[in-house]
Amino acid sequence: MTNHPKSLTGVDTPAAIIDMHRMQHNIQRMQARMDALGVRFRPHVKTTKCSPVVKAQISAGANGITVSTLKEAAHFFDDGITDILYGVGMVANKLLQALALRRRGCDLKILTDSVDSARAIVSFGAEHGEVFEVWIEIDTDGHRSGIRPDESALLDVATVLHEGGARLGGVMTHAGSSYELNTREALAAMAEQERSGCVRAAERLREAGLPCPVVSVGSTPTALRAEHLQGVTEVRAGVYVFFDLVMHNVGVCSTEDVALSVLTTVIGHQAEKGWAIVDAGWMAMSRDRGTQKQQRDFGYGQVCGIDGAVIPGYILSGANQEHGILSREDAPDTDIAARFPIGTLLRILPNHACATGAQFPAYQALDEEGGITEWSRLHGW
Amino acid sequence: MTNHPKSLTGVDTPAAIIDMHRMQHNIQRMQARMDALGVRFRPHVKTTKCSPVVKAQISAGANGITVSTLKEAAHFFDDGITDILYGVGMVANKLLQALALRRRGCDLKILTDSVDSARAIVSFGAEHGEVFEVWIEIDTDGHRSGIRPDESALLDVATVLHEGGARLGGVMTHAGSSYELNTREALAAMAEQERSGCVRAAERLREAGLPCPVVSVGSTPTALRAEHLQGVTEVRAGVYVFFDLVMHNVGVCSTEDVALSVLTTVIGHQAEKGWAIVDAGWMAMSRDRGTQKQQRDFGYGQVCGIDGAVIPGYILSGANQEHGILSREDAPDTDIAARFPIGTLLRILPNHACATGAQFPAYQALDEEGGITEWSRLHGW
Repeated sequence: MTNHPKSLTGVDTPAAIIDMHRMQHNIQRMQARMDALGVRFRPHVKTTKCSPVVKAQISAGANGITVSTLKEAAHFFDDGITDILYGVGMVANKLLQALALRRRGCDLKILTDSVDSARAIVSFGAEHGEVFEVWIEIDTDGHRSGIRPDESALLDVATVLHEGGARLGGVMTHAGSSYELNTREALAAMAEQERSGCVRAAERLREAGLPCPVVSVGSTPTALRAEHLQGVTEVRAGVYVFFDLVMHNVGVCSTEDVALSVLTTVIGHQAEKGWAIVDAGWMAMSRDRGTQKQQRDFGYGQVCGIDGAVIPGYILSGANQEHGILSREDAPDTDIAARFPIGTLLRILPNHACATGAQFPAYQALDEEGGITEWSRLHGW
Repeated sequence: MTNHPKSLTGVDTPAAIIDMHRMQHNIQRMQARMDALGVRFRPHVKTTKCSPVVKAQISAGANGITVSTLKEAAHFFDDGITDILYGVGMVANKLLQALALRRRGCDLKILTDSVDSARAIVSFGAEHGEVFEVWIEIDTDGHRSGIRPDESALLDVATVLHEGGARLGGVMTHAGSSYELNTREALAAMAEQERSGCVRAAERLREAGLPCPVVSVGSTPTALRAEHLQGVTEVRAGVYVFFDLVMHNVGVCSTEDVALSVLTTVIGHQAEKGWAIVDAGWMAMSRDRGTQKQQRDFGYGQVCGIDGAVIPGYILSGANQEHGILSREDAPDTDIAARFPIGTLLRILPNHACATGAQFPAYQALDEEGGITEWSRLHGW
């Protein structure tokens, strides 16, 4: 129902607000770091799935993008981006979609970590006369997919691809367990583990006479804390563009860097309990409780004023589908109805920007003059 | 990218599958229970936000609907449903939308639980010459919003509405804490608490000479376990239409009743760990971990075969954005790569159907002949 509001006070709530100044700052910070480390940067657009954000990342110097779905690949290819890595292991029933994209001119790179999938790719490629560019996923931290750098399967997969007529594009890894750390030293060590493991995998391929032009690593925490990236050609990261409370707890941003917030209206109180009820429940915030196991649990989010300034000690302590429960962390604020009267507009910083953004069909981008532009985002597959 | 597939094997994954037979069974079961209890039934459409599902509920005998957003109200009014309760406390900045709906002929009922909001409603109504029908939200279990049945504020709010020219439509309550119970006796007791509290509030209004035609109660567990509903005129419930693993743990359905599942493809393995990797991560399942605190924790979901039959002992034990980790609950299945080869299609029952459905732009409705129809659903506000 948003009808080109002039300012935040005209936006229907709940709404996903992007602070454009903070977003630009985050983009510049990451790109500068990548430039200093001497690597290309390929942002993961799964965080935002939003054309104007990705355009800003490319304008700042990014080379190509990473996507989490083939729908994202098709969308951003239509936006004019050709260099796209689909960062989820390819499987036979998605090859027709990948082929269609390549036939349209998209320089789509696909991923595998198994002989079975590699065989499916080369067999499909042979059948359709298509040379797929395939990267091999490396497991450097045990958290998800990938082949460990020293496993024999690495050469088996690479050989199937190379001899089967695919283009062996390189190796990639994602040290997602960096999200579980929270000191500069531990993150630097994880970044080194991610780097050295991926470089080791590349070296094994090259020693075997196989091509491996790209060595791609990254996660937001390791990208920002790596001390050097020798042997790495490119880095990927996603959530840095907005940051969030999980990243605050990991220690790579402050709450003042978080560029995504949910605008909400106070709709009631349970004054004796110290609760204000707001119209941002879990449907708006997402069910992500990523800070629950970290050193500071922000519930469903940190409360800020409409100006974006943190209101210390107030969080969303609970959430139903369309109701958020706002309370003071240490002890009930029995004055809460006077502090946050019905109709008060607040902004809530999310635990996890990727999850919260996905709850909204569009972002409301807030510029430095207080103006609002609606930026649509992708939903579904 | 779905192009009218003939069967599940032609559906792009991940996808949200509705088992139409199970859904119809759930609808019939609830409507029969409501008929036996002698009350009208007003389903909460927030679970599905999907026209064909709601049409099936109305066809089975439902009277009107409950919505969680004004976007749902507008959508289902366009479908021809006029009797709509907006089940979230009304606030001043949403009154223009509510007015627009009423002016178009929608018999929209709105909700309040405070003198401040009641004043805002009557003042706006007077300004625009509109008689709003307002219900008062009653708190019968302390879990969220509402006025307690014996609070003096009940008469204050009712008086502001009645004297201010609004139509006092009734009282409503939702004993959402029923989700925390798991025995027939405890649920029956909670249903009685919900019923008696709401009836008590209605009696207080009537004793004060105020009108209170409607007494509306409900949640899926209390609706199914209430022993009688004397004094109640209507019941609301939402998740019963699909059920889910949380409701299974509450004890009001079996896994064979769960009508929503996420179709997913096996994309890889970490065989030594006993992991299969599937393409349903938290973006598909949602971040809802509602079974985590219940007597049985299903992780991110219960694994079923493509035929919908539960595969005992296998759950989604972890999730990244587009990666699910499938494993055996008791001990690693080192034979998992042979059991679930790459390309295997599986269906995952969700913790919480309302949250999982919201991750998809559309459902794929599976009929008894195995045919598929795409049913779109609402997203956002």
